[in-house]
Amino acid sequence: MTVLKSWLSIDARSPFSIHNLPFGIISTPDSPVRRPAIAIGSHALDLRAFADGNGFSRLSIIQPHQSVFSQSVLNDFAALGRPMHRVVREYLQSVLLEDGPFPDVLQKNEQLKEQSLLPLDQCKMHLPMHIGDYTDFYAGLNHAYNVGVLFRGPQNALQPNYKHLPVGYHGRASSVVVSGTPIRRPNGQILVNPAAEKKEPILSPSKKLDLELELGCFICKSSALGEAVPVSHAPEHLFGVVLMNDWSARDIQAWEYVPLGPFNSKNFGTTISPWIVLMDALEPFATKGIKNDTQLLPYLDEKDRDSHFAIDLSFALATPSGGKTTLARTSATQLLFSFPQMLAHHTIGGCPFTVGDLMGSGTISGENRAEKGALLEQTENGKHELELEGGETRTFLQDGDTVILSGICGGVDGALVGFGDCIGTIQPAFEIQF
Amino acid sequence: MTVLKSWLSIDARSPFSIHNLPFGIISTPDSPVRRPAIAIGSHALDLRAFADGNGFSRLSIIQPHQSVFSQSVLNDFAALGRPMHRVVREYLQSVLLEDGPFPDVLQKNEQLKEQSLLPLDQCKMHLPMHIGDYTDFYAGLNHAYNVGVLFRGPQNALQPNYKHLPVGYHGRASSVVVSGTPIRRPNGQILVNPAAEKKEPILSPSKKLDLELELGCFICKSSALGEAVPVSHAPEHLFGVVLMNDWSARDIQAWEYVPLGPFNSKNFGTTISPWIVLMDALEPFATKGIKNDTQLLPYLDEKDRDSHFAIDLSFALATPSGGKTTLARTSATQLLFSFPQMLAHHTIGGCPFTVGDLMGSGTISGENRAEKGALLEQTENGKHELELEGGETRTFLQDGDTVILSGICGGVDGALVGFGDCIGTIQPAFEIQF
Repeated sequence: MTVLKSWLSIDARSPFSIHNLPFGIISTPDSPVRRPAIAIGSHALDLRAFADGNGFSRLSIIQPHQSVFSQSVLNDFAALGRPMHRVVREYLQSVLLEDGPFPDVLQKNEQLKEQSLLPLDQCKMHLPMHIGDYTDFYAGLNHAYNVGVLFRGPQNALQPNYKHLPVGYHGRASSVVVSGTPIRRPNGQILVNPAAEKKEPILSPSKKLDLELELGCFICKSSALGEAVPVSHAPEHLFGVVLMNDWSARDIQAWEYVPLGPFNSKNFGTTISPWIVLMDALEPFATKGIKNDTQLLPYLDEKDRDSHFAIDLSFALATPSGGKTTLARTSATQLLFSFPQMLAHHTIGGCPFTVGDLMGSGTISGENRAEKGALLEQTENGKHELELEGGETRTFLQDGDTVILSGICGGVDGALVGFGDCIGTIQPAFEIQF
Repeated sequence: MTVLKSWLSIDARSPFSIHNLPFGIISTPDSPVRRPAIAIGSHALDLRAFADGNGFSRLSIIQPHQSVFSQSVLNDFAALGRPMHRVVREYLQSVLLEDGPFPDVLQKNEQLKEQSLLPLDQCKMHLPMHIGDYTDFYAGLNHAYNVGVLFRGPQNALQPNYKHLPVGYHGRASSVVVSGTPIRRPNGQILVNPAAEKKEPILSPSKKLDLELELGCFICKSSALGEAVPVSHAPEHLFGVVLMNDWSARDIQAWEYVPLGPFNSKNFGTTISPWIVLMDALEPFATKGIKNDTQLLPYLDEKDRDSHFAIDLSFALATPSGGKTTLARTSATQLLFSFPQMLAHHTIGGCPFTVGDLMGSGTISGENRAEKGALLEQTENGKHELELEGGETRTFLQDGDTVILSGICGGVDGALVGFGDCIGTIQPAFEIQF
């Protein structure tokens, strides 16, 4: 791999190398209007300012569409399609490249640099897309197996359908929030004594508040009601990837989920990282996922394509006392189904998609405890305490706890493609009013 | 009940009496722009034309907000809140009333009549709201029981949680369509022989395509992440009600639904009636639903309020041969939980709502066969054939079949409050491309 170098000073360990250039929505104290930007090192390049300052002068193909850089979400940019994302990203790379072809555009344009290059730590990040519909899958085979063992034993851990199709459920789009948004511990019906013959729930703040380490993938191409997206076309429908924490209340879930699936146990908040790493930035890390030992129906057959990505994932827990402990490290290759397979399956019956729709991968776990992407698995539903730095312990999340998801591709200094952090802090449950 | 009379000629059996005045979105051959209207007898009153022609001159409170009548969906009107819906509807009633207080506004204003009163049969109806999120509940006790008996026997028909909370799942907002939109038979994975030890699905057009007779309720007041709507406040959040057909592919559902609930078996289309009957129009028909013999937690306690509506519901099947058979008649009182209870439960953990969100009631069935709101129940999952007019039979829907849902309140001529029809015709499955 050839490491590209920018004229801009970038820390060699920055997740936002010139190989990345993820897209997000920023605002600043000076200018509270939400607008698109890319992250580069410790800076955001404000694309509205860049476009207004004639920064796209050498990319004529984007000029009729420059209004997308004045929008408060990235949907219109996404809707321009994969080929346009590619040329825009490559153009921005060339503008930022040391000894690049267009030094006059930004490098030697002091005025535009001042207007468009903003310190990242002064940018407030916002939800990058307007999300029409959000679906969460369950494609992390080890997670599904581990959870199945907990509730049904090893013989019946996986349901008969599990390897034939990417199991998923419709989530709540309105509850998707950007990294940094506090998460309130949900109230809900829980069974204090599930083993009792008489099932009498109480209303209580969840006592089993958990996280789920996932990836999310945004859609950039719509499909109509009654139209299926073939798995071979699906990559053209994918805009980019974010980290996703699908916060889960395990006690609410256990009581509510039969027979229609998770509901209030999930819809109190799902956190995504603010920067969307485009599919093109991930392509160099394309690889295989978990091999499926089941013969798939042809509509899910990817013909041995590398449709997963070697993203190193981790989550850490920071407590109010100041300790921070990394509790799991795993990889995005620990998925049985890819995003193209998820989209092909989701649309096989004719379900329509809109630009901005979000698909979650499901919790990603490896096989060992320190690779498990949820506390439910790590603690075996609260049976084992986890030891944290500084001597504290946890089974599930306590008020004030902060969960930090991280993800990064490639280990090469100066060429890292990372997601930045996906963070949420637990606030106490609110008081119920009647 | 005093029957109000309009100066406009209205059939005494019209569902759109002056007591109703439901809101919808129309376009016409002359003017393809989508705009709000109310239905009155065999006419639509075009509210954009009415507002432009100074029709709201005697209702000063709405004047700063008249732009809501130039929108392509009713969200902005809905967001004005229940008190404003009430005065607007009452004002329109007064304008249409024989010997009303404002004859000069419309009755004696030939120009405005010509511009704003359009024959209903020339209006194309559109989706009335932009739907952010759509949730479908399962509050039809008899339906849940009947289906439970089919799959688990009478002893375990209802899950332990069923009477404690309104069970629901997140649906697919993008798949909600307006009455008249053709519905394609979905393709999907089905198990041809579920009893076989080896579970090998095939990809096939659904062989068990069904309807579900439901009500839908639109939200007119948002609530924030981390905020619960108390059941006593919930009525102020409800905009109005539509008929809803939650088309279901029973064979796809049976294979896919464990453990996360229905997915592709539902997301290929959900049809709603085009006219939203406002909550105020339904108030005279408020009554009790099914008595819940379980002690509810206080957040779901409505304190004996009449929170259901006496809406007579039916569905009919029209086949390509021309026959039309009414297969079920039931009542919206056959629900265990009300819309206020559904909203209170949905938000108890802090799930946010947006104006335009839609909640479905779940299938509404009585106890007898001719009262059951789905073919699954009527045919006991295909075991019994239904006899149609003209000698045809059905277990599930065939290509070309048309399903018509109807709903009406009150039996008093000239004072009917009805929904009009909610219609969909089944088209053959599309061919899969790889």
